[in-house]
Amino acid sequence: MTIEASSTATARRRLRLGMVGGGRGAFIGAVHRIAARLDDRYELVAGALSSDPERALASADDLLIAPDRAYADFADMARMEAARPDCIDVVAIVTPNHLHFPAARAFLAAGIHVICDKPMTRTVAEAEALADLVEKSGLVFVLTHNYTAYPMVRQAKSMVADGVLGKLRLVQVEYPQDWLTTAVEATGSKQAEWRVDPARSGAGGSLGDIGSHAFNLAEYISGLKVETLAADLECFVPGRTLDDNANILMRFAGGAKGMLWCSQVAPGNANALKIRLYGEKGGLEWQQESPNTLLHTPFGEPPRLITRSGPGANAAAAHATRVPSGHPEGYLEGFAQVYADAAELISARLDKRAPDPAALGVPTVHDGVRGVRFIDAAVRSGRANAGWTIV
Amino acid sequence: MTIEASSTATARRRLRLGMVGGGRGAFIGAVHRIAARLDDRYELVAGALSSDPERALASADDLLIAPDRAYADFADMARMEAARPDCIDVVAIVTPNHLHFPAARAFLAAGIHVICDKPMTRTVAEAEALADLVEKSGLVFVLTHNYTAYPMVRQAKSMVADGVLGKLRLVQVEYPQDWLTTAVEATGSKQAEWRVDPARSGAGGSLGDIGSHAFNLAEYISGLKVETLAADLECFVPGRTLDDNANILMRFAGGAKGMLWCSQVAPGNANALKIRLYGEKGGLEWQQESPNTLLHTPFGEPPRLITRSGPGANAAAAHATRVPSGHPEGYLEGFAQVYADAAELISARLDKRAPDPAALGVPTVHDGVRGVRFIDAAVRSGRANAGWTIV
Amino acid sequence: MTIEASSTATARRRLRLGMVGGGRGAFIGAVHRIAARLDDRYELVAGALSSDPERALASADDLLIAPDRAYADFADMARMEAARPDCIDVVAIVTPNHLHFPAARAFLAAGIHVICDKPMTRTVAEAEALADLVEKSGLVFVLTHNYTAYPMVRQAKSMVADGVLGKLRLVQVEYPQDWLTTAVEATGSKQAEWRVDPARSGAGGSLGDIGSHAFNLAEYISGLKVETLAADLECFVPGRTLDDNANILMRFAGGAKGMLWCSQVAPGNANALKIRLYGEKGGLEWQQESPNTLLHTPFGEPPRLITRSGPGANAAAAHATRVPSGHPEGYLEGFAQVYADAAELISARLDKRAPDPAALGVPTVHDGVRGVRFIDAAVRSGRANAGWTIV
Amino acid sequence: MTIEASSTATARRRLRLGMVGGGRGAFIGAVHRIAARLDDRYELVAGALSSDPERALASADDLLIAPDRAYADFADMARMEAARPDCIDVVAIVTPNHLHFPAARAFLAAGIHVICDKPMTRTVAEAEALADLVEKSGLVFVLTHNYTAYPMVRQAKSMVADGVLGKLRLVQVEYPQDWLTTAVEATGSKQAEWRVDPARSGAGGSLGDIGSHAFNLAEYISGLKVETLAADLECFVPGRTLDDNANILMRFAGGAKGMLWCSQVAPGNANALKIRLYGEKGGLEWQQESPNTLLHTPFGEPPRLITRSGPGANAAAAHATRVPSGHPEGYLEGFAQVYADAAELISARLDKRAPDPAALGVPTVHDGVRGVRFIDAAVRSGRANAGWTIV
Repeated sequence: MTIEASSTATARRRLRLGMVGGGRGAFIGAVHRIAARLDDRYELVAGALSSDPERALASADDLLIAPDRAYADFADMARMEAARPDCIDVVAIVTPNHLHFPAARAFLAAGIHVICDKPMTRTVAEAEALADLVEKSGLVFVLTHNYTAYPMVRQAKSMVADGVLGKLRLVQVEYPQDWLTTAVEATGSKQAEWRVDPARSGAGGSLGDIGSHAFNLAEYISGLKVETLAADLECFVPGRTLDDNANILMRFAGGAKGMLWCSQVAPGNANALKIRLYGEKGGLEWQQESPNTLLHTPFGEPPRLITRSGPGANAAAAHATRVPSGHPEGYLEGFAQVYADAAELISARLDKRAPDPAALGVPTVHDGVRGVRFIDAAVRSGRANAGWTIV
Repeated sequence: MTIEASSTATARRRLRLGMVGGGRGAFIGAVHRIAARLDDRYELVAGALSSDPERALASADDLLIAPDRAYADFADMARMEAARPDCIDVVAIVTPNHLHFPAARAFLAAGIHVICDKPMTRTVAEAEALADLVEKSGLVFVLTHNYTAYPMVRQAKSMVADGVLGKLRLVQVEYPQDWLTTAVEATGSKQAEWRVDPARSGAGGSLGDIGSHAFNLAEYISGLKVETLAADLECFVPGRTLDDNANILMRFAGGAKGMLWCSQVAPGNANALKIRLYGEKGGLEWQQESPNTLLHTPFGEPPRLITRSGPGANAAAAHATRVPSGHPEGYLEGFAQVYADAAELISARLDKRAPDPAALGVPTVHDGVRGVRFIDAAVRSGRANAGWTIV
Repeated sequence: MTIEASSTATARRRLRLGMVGGGRGAFIGAVHRIAARLDDRYELVAGALSSDPERALASADDLLIAPDRAYADFADMARMEAARPDCIDVVAIVTPNHLHFPAARAFLAAGIHVICDKPMTRTVAEAEALADLVEKSGLVFVLTHNYTAYPMVRQAKSMVADGVLGKLRLVQVEYPQDWLTTAVEATGSKQAEWRVDPARSGAGGSLGDIGSHAFNLAEYISGLKVETLAADLECFVPGRTLDDNANILMRFAGGAKGMLWCSQVAPGNANALKIRLYGEKGGLEWQQESPNTLLHTPFGEPPRLITRSGPGANAAAAHATRVPSGHPEGYLEGFAQVYADAAELISARLDKRAPDPAALGVPTVHDGVRGVRFIDAAVRSGRANAGWTIV
Repeated sequence: MTIEASSTATARRRLRLGMVGGGRGAFIGAVHRIAARLDDRYELVAGALSSDPERALASADDLLIAPDRAYADFADMARMEAARPDCIDVVAIVTPNHLHFPAARAFLAAGIHVICDKPMTRTVAEAEALADLVEKSGLVFVLTHNYTAYPMVRQAKSMVADGVLGKLRLVQVEYPQDWLTTAVEATGSKQAEWRVDPARSGAGGSLGDIGSHAFNLAEYISGLKVETLAADLECFVPGRTLDDNANILMRFAGGAKGMLWCSQVAPGNANALKIRLYGEKGGLEWQQESPNTLLHTPFGEPPRLITRSGPGANAAAAHATRVPSGHPEGYLEGFAQVYADAAELISARLDKRAPDPAALGVPTVHDGVRGVRFIDAAVRSGRANAGWTIV
């Protein structure tokens, strides 16, 4: 792949990036910034990094953002940037979930492309409204379902689409973590605090934080839609109101079936997202913590270990990788790929040319709608004693 | 552990073993015989190895069983053995499922101890009737849920009972295979043929063949009972009437939850039984295909690899192992442990002494009843669109 | 494979087995007995289980051996058994190393087949003398290099012979353990005591105990002979006179090269024998602690996981296995395979027919000579500051 | 850790970086640039990216380097940059090996800090001369032995230094690859071409390219110096003059011993650097292809899996990581850490303050001298039939 700025045939410049959220003390904001820098197609020039004006300014200063482009309010930022000749090309929204919608709306209205964290919005209504806004605006909207951008995930999606597994029968996905095994939200963890708060997280706990990734990955690789699900939600740690574990059955359009497990109370699991798909002709298995390998199990033949950039790696994987086989890539490179693909889409718009088809694998507002529908359906199913619920 | 005959403090002799089923061409019968031989506490002296008289005789001859103890009918065998001074001490029943009940009944009636394959019976009514018969007889009845006898499974059960994990929250168990991915039953596989036939298998397909093992393992290690389940059954291969895949949600007494997946159509999985348990204080993970290791994940500490006979292995594991750490034991040794424990229980009866408490971990008729209830509940739930059903 | 007695087309009976060594408290004797029982082709009927008469008798009694066939002296046993009409067919010699030679000599002289533990003798002179005796006797002599009998090792040997790897370039073998990390021989471990004693072990410490296995495996699978080696021996634990670690370079006939590492002071390694072979067209990797898998890496293609009895397993593997893929076999089954093959060779002699060719993979007196030469060469090289020494 | 520019307490600016080598078609240059960008402490402003003037200019343009700072000659670049008020702070030298020395000399003479690829020079004389120049200059010289900067490698070094393993006995290191299994240098691979050419690579083939990494890692983690080695070099692929495989014995000061294997003809190995260290009290094992885990095997206790940012990770690891446990980091993050630490050292010089002690783990010119000595000693040993040679 091309991993540096000039690769945009377009403008001989980096894209100007703004950021909403991600001030001092935040985690995911820094990840977005590394991701944006890694392939050198962005420069960060503006930010509404915190709603606290002082913190916003200090955070901007940390990042060498000029003081006049350090905003305390995203609405101001959208309006004032739009008025500048060197207006940002794109904004990255990395706030807690409840602000995704209003912020995205503001920047789309200002004609600015958007890269947004997931889950996309708190409610299905907001998600659908946002999809409408994006459609009408003609702007690029990229959702950072970063796990879709690992080379071996791209490879898996491509293999399924090519029929390598035959008709799919089963999609088993799981995403266990352990960091909420005890009530850390009561001991000052900011990360935990907002995630267990319905006002900021929405109706899903583990569902929204990680279940939505698992769901997205299942639909992304399989190319199938989940029609109905039955979700048994649980909140194991006393004092919480949102689920910290969800056991879910899924039925896909076309007859495939699946299970989804997400948990934040499974000791020994750091970030153990794993997916397995089985069809009439073979299977695939991928684990996020060992992302450079994809196990392919053609029925009746020895299992094969396909490694990133190694023998058997396909074009979809090659598009999303930087270094040779045996040189492990990880979480930040996957995240960076979302930014690289977003850069390609945005540059194509700026240059009025068709985007690189390989960049089209990046998740969009429609994936965002699906994710919010998933959370909504799972919460409703959970309240109905795990009754089957349409997604 | 003691791995040879004389270890029975009892009689200075091996136990006399008979077998029902397991003639030429059978698979599991040979496994039972190896298991019985391995620790040298049995000698095989009689058999109704086939219902076809000629095949029964030839099969007995293969095994060096004397012709006068080669029976074509298990009822004859029970009656005639009971009349001999050197009557068998115990019979192993290794037929297809539908014969387990009548055969067990016949030998119990003749005062002969029973080792029986699983699932125990075809119906809950038969299972409960059998439990009654066993209770009244005062005889030993051991069910070969062989996976419970792996040293690391014994260790896991013991650790859970000792509270090492704290109160349990989650039990995730899965048992995927791939050998029924295509319609092999149509191409002359005897093993496949009876397993997909409700008349011989009972109401469960993958449920009975392997799901019952997974369910048993979950209850065995956790020490908890599944109260209700919701089972989404599927028969993916055209022409079958029994499930070849089951996705199941479980709720345990006391509040723990779980998922159970069994499948015989998951390419790349040979016999991939795996269980994970998570409690307030830590987790455990065990995989049948790498049975000599148990992963213990105390919350907030580095995960530990406990190996059979290695540092951290406990007395329950030590009871069930033969060779030092690093010398892998496997399926046959696990199976043999069931026989070794059965020998200990039977010898204790013969000697009128209390059995070795460590041998009491062996599955009994009550586990058999639970297993049949599980299949029955899952089948009923499946017919009710995966509605919650009491086990 | 055939896993029961009658499979010897020959005599309608089990082979009569005697044992030298292996009395109460011994480890490897019990392993040999399980191995002999597992496939039901032997019955243990005589023994000189200890040189202490009382212990010999008690040990025999433990094993249900008749008192008149419980000997205190192997020479008596050879002589007296030879005089019986029901003389043993074969003797298993499982003593400390220094007794292998005199015991084997005595039984060969009595016309009795021999199964002998490794390393075969203490000196090269003894080894060569023994090879002569075997040749002249026309009797079967099997050396229990048990690791050669794992199905995946048989498969590897067969693949190399078939040219699957092309011309071999590299053979890397290692066998680390940790049980002698501290001076356990000073704390009453009988196993440790004789192994660190040159009088009973011979000139090699880790070299003899495990290095000889590693060396044998390298020659066995590769089909190549080591011409010269350079051995850097070390005795890390104070008070020992024999090596507890050996780092060795090897040069094979034909130009391949290799490294051999054996250690008994590598914490965390239980019995971690591992071998890798690389040729012009591909590689193979096998680990004793996960013996059911063989990694095949054809150059330029994705690595393949060949599993015992699974897709890609060949006839050589099938000959040495009992249960389907996914049902792990281990150390005892490998050991049992040596006994099964020995039974086939001996039965063929008794029946005056050609042995099953598949049984010819079992190690012989010639492998024993190579092993003793290896120890001798490595010790001499070690004394010469790791100078190149002919094996 | 601090992962962004402002973290240099120093100058409120990024360090100005120049690069020698790394033009179009190069591999490692792009890696250095990503590494420099990742933590946002550098901006690339000048380059002598190719010795071909046209290619140099085009390559600079690709990277948005101003034309007046695109040089075709590193000597010109050093001189002209030194004359500018916005002179580069530091240069990265990423050429083939033979140019490292003259380029480094030129920039040191110009008062510019240096980051240099490995192996440092072609000869020991050059290496020592360079060490002198660095000493006299008082400038920062960082060698990109990038594998030392993985968090789990830093952790391992720190654990060994803290005595967690006790006195070290064994250091086993290996670095197999497979990309030179066939004569790719004859088929147009630029990467292969210069590596097999003594004029550009120096006297070592696999020794210089990867053996030097393995050697460095062994000394880096162990804290011990190799005193002597015995190297059996081989050139398996016809037509080559440099080694493509090396089997090496090592003896460390203080009595520890080790083996080093490097190979570029081992099919199935992409970049399989692995190190194991064993002491009186325990062992450590790390593999570059799964870099986020460190296996710690305290003698007599269950092995522990220490994961990057997980329980048991220490301060040395924390210094070198960016994201939480379970979010894999890889090769680029390791490389970036070298740049981050170099930035810290250089900023400290610019600010006239003491550097962050944690940054002092970065490899220096002295490691470079050791690496060249290693290659030299191994080549001499190889010529002397693997005789013991002082490093």
